[in-house]
Amino acid sequence: MDELLEKASLARKAWYQLSRTTDPVRRRALEAMASAIIERQDFILEANRLDVENYRKARGEDTLLDRLVLNEKRLRSAADGLRKVANLPDPIGEVVEGWTTVHGLRIYKVRVPLGVIGVVYESRPNVTIDIAGLAIKSGNAVLLRGGSEAINSNRAIVNVMRESLEGIIDKDAIQLIENTDRSVVDRMLRLNGYLDLIVPRGSAAFIEYVRKNATVPVIETGAGNNHIFVNYDADLDMATRIIINAKVQRPAVCNAVRKVLIHEKIAERYLPVLVQELRKYNVRIKGDERARAIVPDLEAVTDEDWNTEYMDLTLAVKIVSSVEEAVEHINRHGTKHSEAIITNDLKDAQYFTWNVDAACTYVNASTRFTDGEQFGFGAEVGISTQKLHARGPMGIKELTTTKYIIYGEGQVREI
Amino acid sequence: MDELLEKASLARKAWYQLSRTTDPVRRRALEAMASAIIERQDFILEANRLDVENYRKARGEDTLLDRLVLNEKRLRSAADGLRKVANLPDPIGEVVEGWTTVHGLRIYKVRVPLGVIGVVYESRPNVTIDIAGLAIKSGNAVLLRGGSEAINSNRAIVNVMRESLEGIIDKDAIQLIENTDRSVVDRMLRLNGYLDLIVPRGSAAFIEYVRKNATVPVIETGAGNNHIFVNYDADLDMATRIIINAKVQRPAVCNAVRKVLIHEKIAERYLPVLVQELRKYNVRIKGDERARAIVPDLEAVTDEDWNTEYMDLTLAVKIVSSVEEAVEHINRHGTKHSEAIITNDLKDAQYFTWNVDAACTYVNASTRFTDGEQFGFGAEVGISTQKLHARGPMGIKELTTTKYIIYGEGQVREI
Repeated sequence: MDELLEKASLARKAWYQLSRTTDPVRRRALEAMASAIIERQDFILEANRLDVENYRKARGEDTLLDRLVLNEKRLRSAADGLRKVANLPDPIGEVVEGWTTVHGLRIYKVRVPLGVIGVVYESRPNVTIDIAGLAIKSGNAVLLRGGSEAINSNRAIVNVMRESLEGIIDKDAIQLIENTDRSVVDRMLRLNGYLDLIVPRGSAAFIEYVRKNATVPVIETGAGNNHIFVNYDADLDMATRIIINAKVQRPAVCNAVRKVLIHEKIAERYLPVLVQELRKYNVRIKGDERARAIVPDLEAVTDEDWNTEYMDLTLAVKIVSSVEEAVEHINRHGTKHSEAIITNDLKDAQYFTWNVDAACTYVNASTRFTDGEQFGFGAEVGISTQKLHARGPMGIKELTTTKYIIYGEGQVREI
Repeated sequence: MDELLEKASLARKAWYQLSRTTDPVRRRALEAMASAIIERQDFILEANRLDVENYRKARGEDTLLDRLVLNEKRLRSAADGLRKVANLPDPIGEVVEGWTTVHGLRIYKVRVPLGVIGVVYESRPNVTIDIAGLAIKSGNAVLLRGGSEAINSNRAIVNVMRESLEGIIDKDAIQLIENTDRSVVDRMLRLNGYLDLIVPRGSAAFIEYVRKNATVPVIETGAGNNHIFVNYDADLDMATRIIINAKVQRPAVCNAVRKVLIHEKIAERYLPVLVQELRKYNVRIKGDERARAIVPDLEAVTDEDWNTEYMDLTLAVKIVSSVEEAVEHINRHGTKHSEAIITNDLKDAQYFTWNVDAACTYVNASTRFTDGEQFGFGAEVGISTQKLHARGPMGIKELTTTKYIIYGEGQVREI
């Protein structure tokens, strides 16, 4: 039997056991994983150094290299995440709702694990730790497929985690596919009957590929063409602080801001200030016609810009006449990830938050908060931008499903 | 612009309006639809007669013909369903949960409509009424694609419903694709950006086709290879009554029973009685070796039988040694739809209901209750056998998603 089917079968078997455990057992599993990662950090860091060396040889220094690198601090942070997740309330067994039907049937809708979750991801080896922890806590097994560039790190991390489960739960609940051929991913995407869910993490092109080719249910973790709308009455210092945070801190992540919309009433006063502040951070600013009438040296925006998720320090600015126009623009061009309004106007805040069609809508806060850790989930599987099953940061609850348990007293159906 | 894109765009536009309506408006819309269907029943029934005539000419009388036929009673029942759905509590705007983060952000997770829902289905034209009603009540627009054999009925029904919405909501929220080419379905399955969800209803082969070809998120409404396990202590009269109900009442529907498992302690006494009763209804019974040792004239079961969803009066019987063996057999061969135990043993009932991996697990009731109407949902979009988003009968709540609304006071992210 080949690696993929063998490991998928082992994961499924381990899941049947794991799904019957109580929370203290799963909590102990995560705590053991956390301790082992700290105790065995030299072993993990050594494997990581090999990946980093190979990467340098093959591609030289580039911005992705930093994502691959592990160090004591990053491992400690991942271990802390595991401990946080360990101590979250158990999602499994929760009675979500229940009622008695007209026939006297007692219906209970209860929360149960999903089963075996396939995750396909790139670079960052700490994702391996986060996802394994979230899966185990919520009673699921995982089939992990990391990028080839991180194979040594992932193998070391998974070995350490699996060993730590000895005597607590079946270690086969965590599986790493070591074959780094692209063809293995294609087969994973069609592993119905073995996998209950596939979560792809990576470039927009990769996620699109998964969506087109998967027959296993997928949750897309999508792009973030995010907007911040500075309303007519915004606290402008706050607006600038939030825009700089959302644009500059980590420009390549999906919860960074890509577009700023400014209400026409304050545009003339505010835009020059904003441009000046952003240029201190080397932000490249494009503007629509109305913006360029105010600050003439902005680059001109193209139609394509409005749909582009800049992965660098580029930002496009548009002047709008109302909150309605802002919402309409966002719903046409946004990717339904994170959208913010800066305002003190209650009516506009309500209108914006309820009418923008996105996973997260913010009032007076940075879009950068769209993140499982920041939401208090301990870690995240990813950020869903689709509407089915999970929307926004995915933690342990998003790795569960429900079932109906129905008690009768011999009822049969009449028609 | 062609029909599909034009109607999908109109539906999307209508949805933006509909998603902002309050519940009394949507309730009025459903009540108007219900009244119109009764008032204009002659018009609808005339169109239906045309479909029935065409079907008879093309294929003669067969079991599917009954599914196509409308009459006053069926229309009244569909209209009653609309009124029931109209009066359900509004799912939209519900605050599902909420908390304050360590940074002082106030997070509200609220329930909102999905958007535009594509439904591809066959035969039964009353499905058109049910699905349109569930969609509108939950703030969604629908793009309906019924079978070619019901095109006249569906066109009449949709026209009547759309006209009835005049002055209440935008009638474009209900769209029927009249082009009955198969190629239109293929395009619907890939209409990302227009459709938020596709629900296929039909044969197992068709649903498999949709799963393989859709890039829009799908909810599978699946097959029901369902089991009833008669435990050692079962009330045998109750068991027989439930098995006959689940097997005989409507053998072709997905919540009918296909397999009976009998505990070895009662098999010798019970199997002959059960066989005698079932044969009164012309049930064709197959048995495993142990069953045939008790009732020798049963047909022998093949390995394939255990995975087969009989669509007729066939039933297969297996003798098992324990509730554990029953659960193991069900988890290996079932389709995760509806599974029942007949018992008075509390421990076994708990073990069965929590460990069988299925959308609905029953104690002492017929599997036939897995149905939106029977659950109290008024009607159903279908019965989901997948684990993502919705599991079991899908009513209005299953046509919603959530979003996060987050209020801050200028917070920016620190790392």
